[in-house]
Amino acid sequence: MGKKIGVVLSGCGVFDGAEIHEATLTLFFLDRVGAEAICYAPDIAQHHVINHLTGSEMDETRNVMVESARIARGKITPLSEARAEDMDALILPGGFGAAKNLSSVAFDGAEATVNSDLALLLGEIKAAGKPIGAMCISPAVVSKALAEQGVTVTIGDDAGTAGAIEAMGNTHQTSAVEQIVVDDANNIVTTAAYMCAASIAQVGEGIEKLVAEVLKRA
Amino acid sequence: MGKKIGVVLSGCGVFDGAEIHEATLTLFFLDRVGAEAICYAPDIAQHHVINHLTGSEMDETRNVMVESARIARGKITPLSEARAEDMDALILPGGFGAAKNLSSVAFDGAEATVNSDLALLLGEIKAAGKPIGAMCISPAVVSKALAEQGVTVTIGDDAGTAGAIEAMGNTHQTSAVEQIVVDDANNIVTTAAYMCAASIAQVGEGIEKLVAEVLKRA
Repeated sequence: MGKKIGVVLSGCGVFDGAEIHEATLTLFFLDRVGAEAICYAPDIAQHHVINHLTGSEMDETRNVMVESARIARGKITPLSEARAEDMDALILPGGFGAAKNLSSVAFDGAEATVNSDLALLLGEIKAAGKPIGAMCISPAVVSKALAEQGVTVTIGDDAGTAGAIEAMGNTHQTSAVEQIVVDDANNIVTTAAYMCAASIAQVGEGIEKLVAEVLKRA
Repeated sequence: MGKKIGVVLSGCGVFDGAEIHEATLTLFFLDRVGAEAICYAPDIAQHHVINHLTGSEMDETRNVMVESARIARGKITPLSEARAEDMDALILPGGFGAAKNLSSVAFDGAEATVNSDLALLLGEIKAAGKPIGAMCISPAVVSKALAEQGVTVTIGDDAGTAGAIEAMGNTHQTSAVEQIVVDDANNIVTTAAYMCAASIAQVGEGIEKLVAEVLKRA
């Protein structure tokens, strides 16, 4: 049997949910080496809905788990049911959903709050010594959830977000999109993905490395 | 400069739009070999909206181009503006959106109608001798649009859809998910993708081959 890897989604679309390419490529690279992805999302309303053509807010509401199910092809579990014992590692794709639905990083920076189910899960995974992978803006969410633990992560080279991670009491390491940053002591692997102005192939290169490193540690 | 490949999207989600994994992997494999994807979608209302968690219809409306923009990260062009001269080849990912929004194949089988902008574009591409790639249910849409031309396509091994393609006056060739079927005379490349009960890695294997074959012919 392959390893079981939890994947936390935050909606469906870069501007108000999970970044679709990052989430899909995570599932692809996991499956290609025989790992089993278990998709989770919180059963809560999205912070808002963004028209991805115009960038404007739309006058409607959508549910994070229901929209995440589009990426997971219907197979998704409420985040509140996720337990560290059910998985060998946890990966967080990015997208604004991580910073708007899974946390308030997009609005509050270093003072952000993190969804309580996610914070609990990250704490359990960390305590169990299991690896955590995070990409794009999600390393800032992990940074906040594990703020007391002095973790090292990357979100690429965005000065504002890097500053927020440092203000949380953690260390930010600048990186290029194809690279991963490994915090060996804390068992955390991060990559910048679309936090850099990058093409999908470049983003995929980083995600493939992240998946391989997480699985090696799982 | 890389070749320009039109990619026609039909929403965002397997049950009422473009299949997200198929669309994303198409963009990934195109970019990885240096081709430029140009995403198109019709500026029309979706046939309906399906809750991807429950499978039930939702009481709301969504626009095909606006939702497709989630997959395209905002960079998308109305299908009505697509011209064969703007691209070296055309690829259609699948998902029920191809059979519900780009055509009525899901409801009318061999008697289906095809979105007039798409039918026009497929005819232009075919007349220009440029290659067409189609996956999942989309080969049935191509089959209908080019029904008078005796094309050979695959949608895997689904008897009902294969029968509809034959009833349109074309030829269906049974295939496994990792395979592609090449209609050399008509310059059409097809793969079954999620029409087979398959994993994302298996689907990706077929799509990677399809993209390579389409580019070789472009």
